[in-house]
Amino acid sequence: MLSLVDLRTRIASGALTPSDAVRLAQDAIAAREPEIGAFVCRHDTPVVPDHGPLAGIAVGVKDVIDTADLPTQMGSDIYAGWRPRGDAAIVSRLRALGAVPLGKTTTSPLAGPDPTGTVNPHDPNHTPGGSSAGSAAAVAAGMVPLALGTQTAGSVIRPAAFCGVAAIKPSFRLLPTVGMKTYSWALDTLGLFGAGIRDIAHALALLADRPSIDLQSDAPAAPRIGICLQDFAGAADPDALSALQRAGLAAEAAGAIVTDLVLPHAVAAAWGCQPVIQEFEARQSFAWDYANHPDALPPALKARLDAAQDFRACDYDDARRTAHRGRRALKDVFSEVDAILTLSAPGRAPAGLSSTGDPRFNRLWTLMGVPCVNLPVPGDGLPLGVQIIARFGDDGRALAVARMIEQGLAG
Amino acid sequence: MLSLVDLRTRIASGALTPSDAVRLAQDAIAAREPEIGAFVCRHDTPVVPDHGPLAGIAVGVKDVIDTADLPTQMGSDIYAGWRPRGDAAIVSRLRALGAVPLGKTTTSPLAGPDPTGTVNPHDPNHTPGGSSAGSAAAVAAGMVPLALGTQTAGSVIRPAAFCGVAAIKPSFRLLPTVGMKTYSWALDTLGLFGAGIRDIAHALALLADRPSIDLQSDAPAAPRIGICLQDFAGAADPDALSALQRAGLAAEAAGAIVTDLVLPHAVAAAWGCQPVIQEFEARQSFAWDYANHPDALPPALKARLDAAQDFRACDYDDARRTAHRGRRALKDVFSEVDAILTLSAPGRAPAGLSSTGDPRFNRLWTLMGVPCVNLPVPGDGLPLGVQIIARFGDDGRALAVARMIEQGLAG
Repeated sequence: MLSLVDLRTRIASGALTPSDAVRLAQDAIAAREPEIGAFVCRHDTPVVPDHGPLAGIAVGVKDVIDTADLPTQMGSDIYAGWRPRGDAAIVSRLRALGAVPLGKTTTSPLAGPDPTGTVNPHDPNHTPGGSSAGSAAAVAAGMVPLALGTQTAGSVIRPAAFCGVAAIKPSFRLLPTVGMKTYSWALDTLGLFGAGIRDIAHALALLADRPSIDLQSDAPAAPRIGICLQDFAGAADPDALSALQRAGLAAEAAGAIVTDLVLPHAVAAAWGCQPVIQEFEARQSFAWDYANHPDALPPALKARLDAAQDFRACDYDDARRTAHRGRRALKDVFSEVDAILTLSAPGRAPAGLSSTGDPRFNRLWTLMGVPCVNLPVPGDGLPLGVQIIARFGDDGRALAVARMIEQGLAG
Repeated sequence: MLSLVDLRTRIASGALTPSDAVRLAQDAIAAREPEIGAFVCRHDTPVVPDHGPLAGIAVGVKDVIDTADLPTQMGSDIYAGWRPRGDAAIVSRLRALGAVPLGKTTTSPLAGPDPTGTVNPHDPNHTPGGSSAGSAAAVAAGMVPLALGTQTAGSVIRPAAFCGVAAIKPSFRLLPTVGMKTYSWALDTLGLFGAGIRDIAHALALLADRPSIDLQSDAPAAPRIGICLQDFAGAADPDALSALQRAGLAAEAAGAIVTDLVLPHAVAAAWGCQPVIQEFEARQSFAWDYANHPDALPPALKARLDAAQDFRACDYDDARRTAHRGRRALKDVFSEVDAILTLSAPGRAPAGLSSTGDPRFNRLWTLMGVPCVNLPVPGDGLPLGVQIIARFGDDGRALAVARMIEQGLAG
């Protein structure tokens, strides 16, 4: 994989020019893209800024995020050839930092449940996950050092786990969603994919303009980590549980205080509310698409929206109240642990491309708005990942604990 | 003015067809629009649905709200001729209810502080306020029975007060903002203008799909109303204070228990945070416009964005924490009073068109996310309004109390 921090170090030392760095990405795309299909469109001769803290960094931008210089097609015929007037706020921010938004990456249609044609770089017979399929696959295949995804249920952390890359779904609204296709305004969150924890920490600190998010030289001293199985969301595969156990042992060996964590009922109860909030808002967000282009909607999303037509506002209001109580109860949990270590997905990437996998271990955390990091756990076969979660607004802590475990697993 | 409820009553009884009702609006537009300039563009031969609870209701849509069938130009040359792909969620909702989005109403450029050319229907030498200038003026001039505005600081309640129309800025995110140009995602709120409180209550109940918001036959029994001067926001004109006093007396005469209310420090302290949050987010929302079209930005907005380039994320984070504490303290206030009665604006509409007036009595409530209703107070000269505010999520209560005072003032 292309490491953002390594590229930037070489550029800063003069060993590599920004243009050379972008060319590395283009060469990798030329080699891997025909097999993987992670991009919808891209610049062949991009303009590469000479300066800026992200100069030389080629970025894959999920195709639900507006770009003025490339079409934004949402993975849907409804938006075939669509050209927004301006860039999304996050794309403007990338450009201001000197990065090169090189291409648009594939997305499940309208960031919904239906699959794309993108394949998993580790095995073309398996899904890369979704809905941020192209962004996860492009980083995993070493085609770009940074990619943007979006998560409403589990569309960043799950594909990152399936593809074996680091990713963060930051605290809700830490990164601006202006210029993104809305699925659910209470949930939609921009996320980042990178080769390792250092890479996404550095990128997030710059994009969010909060230097304290970046990793400090000292690892956190004896962080208290609670291992959470999320059994309210169903059982996980033995492989996933084994990866979680290995990550816990690595944390302990690195000096963390690791305990088992059972979430308070108020937090667990919020899990079931996430789909209610998501689909009630999606009914409104996609009202124009649903009314004017019903036949162009992909089947799984169409079925969801059909069902959502009968949802009642009072059930949505109840769900929001339950979520609010869950957030307050979760705050108390974070007075007892510094981070939660849990599953990123029920198991490895499913075979075939008919499903993007199940976001059931991601829903709760997106609803809680807390920062979530996917950390790949080394091992045989298709990738496995674990999820590190910290309190709302403490993205730096989630990253620092993830880095500590990453080093422990490597050592 | 055209009353939505009256039109719907006549349509329901068969005395008026939906097409006739829309033609009433079109005739009024033909008569008044040349003088007032409330519309950017409109349909000359609109398609009028026969059915639906808002059939026959012509609606003015602020030109920062996407429409697929009319340009959406944001009051700015940057978006001259711009055609979004689809309708905003609220426009789709209007159509689903049978209403006719008849035209786009003028907006301060990008919903910022710079004025439009629209004049106050009560006196063309005065501003109608802003940024929802055209929507307030169109309803005040009797050209449409319903109009959509947006408020980030005071862009619905203030122009409603200046133009002498009823308006509601509902609870934050009660109405969907999908497909609206973002200024500040933590603040931007869709609002409604109508002839009277019954009209906006009926429209909001339908648009939000929450029947309980509509006025019940019984007025609330002895509501506790706290009169709040917002002295932390500066002094008001004597005329405005006198209107507030008249509204308080009318409430008391109608059976309300009226007391003076001094807001807790934590609430008042949040007032000063609103501009920090607004402009820090605007810097991101308008990043593409600012980087690519700086010379096309109007002067007052440009100056704000220039200043915001130096804002620090830590100050924004502090402001959000202060706002959060304010919201919690305000909850306690609403255990002591059912509604707050306060100023909608510092006074009557200023003379001339160079300023849209001052939103200082609106900022706090937009930041708190609570429902705010403007109620015109009858009297001589240019209109004056008062603001009725209820707890978050209790839009029906704010409307019921406003209706009680409206009847008291009329009686």
